[in-house]
Amino acid sequence: MKIKVLKDILDANEQLAERNRQLLDSNSVFAVNLLSSPGAGKTSLILATIKSLKGEIKIGVIEGDVSSSLDAEVIGKEGVPVLQINTGGGCHLDANMAYTALNNLPLKSIELLLIENVGNLICPAEFALGEHKKVLISSIPEGDDKPFKYPLMFHKADAVLINKIDLLPYLKFDIQSFSQAIKAMNQAVEIFQISCATGQRIQEWISWLLIQLSKR
Amino acid sequence: MKIKVLKDILDANEQLAERNRQLLDSNSVFAVNLLSSPGAGKTSLILATIKSLKGEIKIGVIEGDVSSSLDAEVIGKEGVPVLQINTGGGCHLDANMAYTALNNLPLKSIELLLIENVGNLICPAEFALGEHKKVLISSIPEGDDKPFKYPLMFHKADAVLINKIDLLPYLKFDIQSFSQAIKAMNQAVEIFQISCATGQRIQEWISWLLIQLSKR
Repeated sequence: MKIKVLKDILDANEQLAERNRQLLDSNSVFAVNLLSSPGAGKTSLILATIKSLKGEIKIGVIEGDVSSSLDAEVIGKEGVPVLQINTGGGCHLDANMAYTALNNLPLKSIELLLIENVGNLICPAEFALGEHKKVLISSIPEGDDKPFKYPLMFHKADAVLINKIDLLPYLKFDIQSFSQAIKAMNQAVEIFQISCATGQRIQEWISWLLIQLSKR
Repeated sequence: MKIKVLKDILDANEQLAERNRQLLDSNSVFAVNLLSSPGAGKTSLILATIKSLKGEIKIGVIEGDVSSSLDAEVIGKEGVPVLQINTGGGCHLDANMAYTALNNLPLKSIELLLIENVGNLICPAEFALGEHKKVLISSIPEGDDKPFKYPLMFHKADAVLINKIDLLPYLKFDIQSFSQAIKAMNQAVEIFQISCATGQRIQEWISWLLIQLSKR
């Protein structure tokens, strides 16, 4: 019974996500759903991406948080349209929340929409928002065992960004075995090593993003 | 309607948690619910606690994960009774899962039960397991804004352990404002600064734990 209800919720979400996708496509907006643990670097990545693409690509942002509008305030200072969603206890964004946000953003003046999901490696993997790509940020201090503990998230990601590589000298993290574990459950995934704090190798992520955008 | 269903689930969970509490008390077991983001240091804290209290306090462990038994295997090597719960997609432990685990542990030979919840700062705050104390581990690399983003978790914690303080030289983290933010929403909370990796100030956590145990 419990499983039936959950399946209904997910089916309904898929339909709403498809509606969002059509709305995005009709406005030529390419949308990325950014997923990670709390504090892995979603907001830092958004800031680094805005900085790198300013004047080149028109960016919009949706900020998802249980509470507060701290991140939206920081991003708003960059002069891009940003909309905060507070889930008020909910542990993930869903397609209905995203739909409301889309209807309050100037989609005609956005080419790339970055959606920062709630910091959580579990439920956000199950709820599509209508995005074109799911990008997972996994940071060095979290440890290299995460693909085994949160397999669905790693399975569903189109790209995994290994963030905070500037901390590698101070922590145990085997990038090779981490990458192998991800590839074993998701052959098509792209993996990047970056540091949003230092800017190290951010350009590789940006290049990938621009290629995806060019395929719109 | 949605809210009604959720309230029913939480009410039912409270009742089951109370049953767990009675079972623990009748066996003189003191139980701690360990909560954190993925990779903040729950397993490392359990290992450091076992190491510190070996031969002094009889410890048992429940390991909660979406998937895998990696942590249970590591902890099993320490020679303490350990039981793995896999939620199979669920983003938190609940009292019913804990009840099953309690019935499969040798409670008569356990004085301190450490329950590692699923790595998630949201839903585990809402589901009591019958524990005597909730302990939240918040690590330096996650950033000092977490109390504002996950207020319920910080509100409900009996103690907050600021872990990975060995990384302070390499990261921006204002311990004073972080602690003030927590105290503002939770006056009774105890806050400790530790490093499970280096063992730094672990003894302060252990002393607090021993005081709680002595009050059983």
